[in-house]
Amino acid sequence: MCELLGMSANTPTDIVFSFTGLMQRSGVTGPHRDGWGISFYEGKGIRDFRDPDPACQSEVALLVQNYPIKSETVISHIRQANAGRVCLENTHPFTRELWGRYWTFAHNGQLKDIKSKALEFYHPVGTTDSEYAFCWILDQIRQRYPKPPARPATLWRFIRKLGDQLRPLGVFNMLLSDGRDLGCYCSTKLCWITRRAPFTKASLKDADVIVDFHQETTPNDVVTVIATLPLTDDEQWNIMSAGDMQVFRKGEALEV
Amino acid sequence: MCELLGMSANTPTDIVFSFTGLMQRSGVTGPHRDGWGISFYEGKGIRDFRDPDPACQSEVALLVQNYPIKSETVISHIRQANAGRVCLENTHPFTRELWGRYWTFAHNGQLKDIKSKALEFYHPVGTTDSEYAFCWILDQIRQRYPKPPARPATLWRFIRKLGDQLRPLGVFNMLLSDGRDLGCYCSTKLCWITRRAPFTKASLKDADVIVDFHQETTPNDVVTVIATLPLTDDEQWNIMSAGDMQVFRKGEALEV
Repeated sequence: MCELLGMSANTPTDIVFSFTGLMQRSGVTGPHRDGWGISFYEGKGIRDFRDPDPACQSEVALLVQNYPIKSETVISHIRQANAGRVCLENTHPFTRELWGRYWTFAHNGQLKDIKSKALEFYHPVGTTDSEYAFCWILDQIRQRYPKPPARPATLWRFIRKLGDQLRPLGVFNMLLSDGRDLGCYCSTKLCWITRRAPFTKASLKDADVIVDFHQETTPNDVVTVIATLPLTDDEQWNIMSAGDMQVFRKGEALEV
Repeated sequence: MCELLGMSANTPTDIVFSFTGLMQRSGVTGPHRDGWGISFYEGKGIRDFRDPDPACQSEVALLVQNYPIKSETVISHIRQANAGRVCLENTHPFTRELWGRYWTFAHNGQLKDIKSKALEFYHPVGTTDSEYAFCWILDQIRQRYPKPPARPATLWRFIRKLGDQLRPLGVFNMLLSDGRDLGCYCSTKLCWITRRAPFTKASLKDADVIVDFHQETTPNDVVTVIATLPLTDDEQWNIMSAGDMQVFRKGEALEV
């Protein structure tokens, strides 16, 4: 199993607080020692940091903690390898271009026999079932929609159906983004919380850290955080059920 | 104009010395203040660092200097914007997947009317002529070779012909790699040097730094560095001519 972390916000926001919690699960409070990665969107551009070493020992992870990059959309992942050896090309998130946008994907779970599905346009570089599934999803989208559909909900409903096809193959919790929308599909474990004014304090489950969001935000900020398991122990997280999909844009849930 | 830097080595090698020289040209000894980027291959995986801020002021660039990532293939670029505004998505190097490998591209020059060429599979995310040219090149390769040709020389001869088509549109100095081979096409300015035993000292043109490669290497190391202009003032660089192409694998020149 791996851990997922995503963020969607209506203003460039740093994710240091949540990332600090997640990193502890990489070798300190959790067993996810087989690499980690984080992708930040800035406009249509993307910034990736990735390491096959445990996040709790990674110099690049320290940079990310000490250098609070602000972003509206973030996807992060820490890995406990099950399929595919520990190396850089097997480290999530994975990125490909579709319709002139960078799409980013991270996955928690295993997908039996995913590699029996044919691939057309996109091909995995590494050997994980996750990257294979990502390539298959983008292939399906591209075949169905050579150009982006006019309504985002049309696209995300289609992606949800792809999730419904993958879920019976094993476990398929995933985060997928084109930088504008952040889609979250739950197979077994995924939860989210939207923070908005009035902001309060919250304390991390996995580290001795408390943040007062009131100090860090403006009254108009809307910030949604998605994670495998709740990251704080004094807030009410929304626990998703098997087959649930949530899509966020600028921190707000889209109707899909 | 922009500055290019590439490395091909037969053993994972750090590029801190050359990168330190290049960074000085971003605002200290040169005018290239409009962002920088560097891509390191580790096996088939890739690590990217990119910033729209000047390299000489970038915290991420300091990380790259202080944290010597070792790689066999590196492409780096510092930008002085001419086409396309200064933002993350317009910052080189650019990366796309082809045949299950990550291809990385950086370009120095301008290509008039490049955007009148049709694109089929790959589409730019940003607005530079460079990324457009990269997408066009990969499109041409993919259409001609749905699968990789058996001999690398076949592929690189084809890429050279693509360069010959682009060069008349303006200036087309470029570095292109699939992680294994590093191809260098010269339109106006590009030079390279291969360092091997017996290693000696060299001093950077752009900073008060001397390195004794003898201390840093083993006798079997072969390291080729490619740059827009020579980075050291006490070594003999090979100056490429208009229309020249060089391809390096593990530091050695391939016959193309």
